[in-house]
Amino acid sequence: MTGDRPTGPLHLGHYVGSLESRIAFQSLYESYILIADTQALTDNFEEPERVHHNVYEVLRDYIAVGIDPHIATIFVQSQVPQLTELTSYFMNLVTVSRLERNPTVKAEIQQKGFGESLPAGFFCYPISQAADIAGFKAHIVPVGEDQLPMIEQCNEIVRRFNRIYKTDCLVEAQAYLGRGKRLTGIDGQSKASKSLGNAIFLSDSKEEVKRKVFAMFTDPNHLRVSDPGAVEGNVVFSYLDIFDTDTERVADLKAHYQRGGLGDTTLKTLLTDILEAFLAPIREKRALLTMPVLKDILHHGNERARRKVEATLSEVREAMHLVYD
Amino acid sequence: MTGDRPTGPLHLGHYVGSLESRIAFQSLYESYILIADTQALTDNFEEPERVHHNVYEVLRDYIAVGIDPHIATIFVQSQVPQLTELTSYFMNLVTVSRLERNPTVKAEIQQKGFGESLPAGFFCYPISQAADIAGFKAHIVPVGEDQLPMIEQCNEIVRRFNRIYKTDCLVEAQAYLGRGKRLTGIDGQSKASKSLGNAIFLSDSKEEVKRKVFAMFTDPNHLRVSDPGAVEGNVVFSYLDIFDTDTERVADLKAHYQRGGLGDTTLKTLLTDILEAFLAPIREKRALLTMPVLKDILHHGNERARRKVEATLSEVREAMHLVYD
Repeated sequence: MTGDRPTGPLHLGHYVGSLESRIAFQSLYESYILIADTQALTDNFEEPERVHHNVYEVLRDYIAVGIDPHIATIFVQSQVPQLTELTSYFMNLVTVSRLERNPTVKAEIQQKGFGESLPAGFFCYPISQAADIAGFKAHIVPVGEDQLPMIEQCNEIVRRFNRIYKTDCLVEAQAYLGRGKRLTGIDGQSKASKSLGNAIFLSDSKEEVKRKVFAMFTDPNHLRVSDPGAVEGNVVFSYLDIFDTDTERVADLKAHYQRGGLGDTTLKTLLTDILEAFLAPIREKRALLTMPVLKDILHHGNERARRKVEATLSEVREAMHLVYD
Repeated sequence: MTGDRPTGPLHLGHYVGSLESRIAFQSLYESYILIADTQALTDNFEEPERVHHNVYEVLRDYIAVGIDPHIATIFVQSQVPQLTELTSYFMNLVTVSRLERNPTVKAEIQQKGFGESLPAGFFCYPISQAADIAGFKAHIVPVGEDQLPMIEQCNEIVRRFNRIYKTDCLVEAQAYLGRGKRLTGIDGQSKASKSLGNAIFLSDSKEEVKRKVFAMFTDPNHLRVSDPGAVEGNVVFSYLDIFDTDTERVADLKAHYQRGGLGDTTLKTLLTDILEAFLAPIREKRALLTMPVLKDILHHGNERARRKVEATLSEVREAMHLVYD
């Protein structure tokens, strides 16, 4: 069980951080991939059109990189309203002060500068996230380190639910930290992100990719080609480390760059070509995905997701004595 | 649109305060009567069996007093999960600080002594209540004075929703304060209530009613039959005022009591007979209601309620750009 908030198209950072492992996982596990439009609305509720548009952008990215909708279930959060029912039951099992202590939410509230205008929906989104995870009885949730408190919160709710309602119908989830790979931004900042404007999108054009690679932060002291240059903190090398499968060549290039005589332009041209070889088929596949195809994928994924959560809810309602007729 | 939390069977206070006007309203308006089990769970989440049991008790009371399930739609909140979906959208439109300021909730939190253990579900229940009202596009909501801030909160959300999502699909509700009739507790406290243990239930046995009437607070200075007695603050008279349709007789009794010579026992025997004449047919009808009949009523009511809210949700999802396939 994993997913993304549809606040924009996905970029190479997403690929390295999560998409790659999802592709590997999809044939090993029953996978559910959530496009969290409802969660995106908790702090973008005034821009529903943008969220709507980005649901399809994210879906295009998924399919184009190789997530197979016949194997993995891709679905849209709002189209599985069963999740809101489960959320409503979970809300009784979490105190307001516990929500106030959640470190992830605390940091986000600070960062987004909500102040007095903190929406209840945003404040409570860890509960809705717990319902997403528990509703699918997810065993493994691939997350970044900053998301660990969310899994903790979810498992707390699951344990409390099972204890109070004398059941074992909900299961605790295990966080999967993966290889913890994180892609540097083109500006050298620690993380490529849409909001920082330092990411290469999976949907960027060839020209856009070239422009971004040539804007990459390298070694500010490497003024002449003949100068020795630094590899550490050099964005071009951190991308080559990840995207150039020819590790021997990368080692040679690093040595050459460090002793001098290798220009940034040569290096950046090489990286552009490597990224282009990676992105061209993605871009091509993206272009082939028509709206009817995308809608059909969602139609089937949403249906499968609804059935899965409905099955969990039957057990939940039974345990809570909420069956009347 | 109106309803009750199923935390116990209904009593004469409910009859005077709301059931009576619902019976009058049901042939005038399209009526929806909510048995709010989900809301009851927000502060009774550890006692789901009790809530479950009381759903049927409340339903028995409704039918027994004369609410006609073929005219009014009686339904159970948890069985219309569409309401939780609407709640989830509304949660983005209410700030945490606005919830903290809600006077009704503030008083209840104080009264229930939640302290640090305030459940998020209870804290947010005005939002779920707003969804109950808006989901049915309720025009009129009969409420007590203490519930006025809830209607205000609901209308705030409705206005905000319509403005942000450029729609007029949701309508503001009008609070109907009724005649503001309130039944005194048998102990003379201002309000008959289950939690104060000073109420006569619609399901009380003949003996129970007699016992409660004879325990009623009258005039502590009226020691001998020949003594003059006070009518003001005398619970027996406040019940006679409401339940004895022979107003002339009540006036005579008051005069007699005030000049002396009318004993409490005579008075209480009369009130017992009057209440018994009122409650006997209710008790009888209650006993005739078998579980299959009750389940059938809920089955149809829940179905009608789901259709109604589903229709509202279609417009809501359209306005919020949440239609994908």
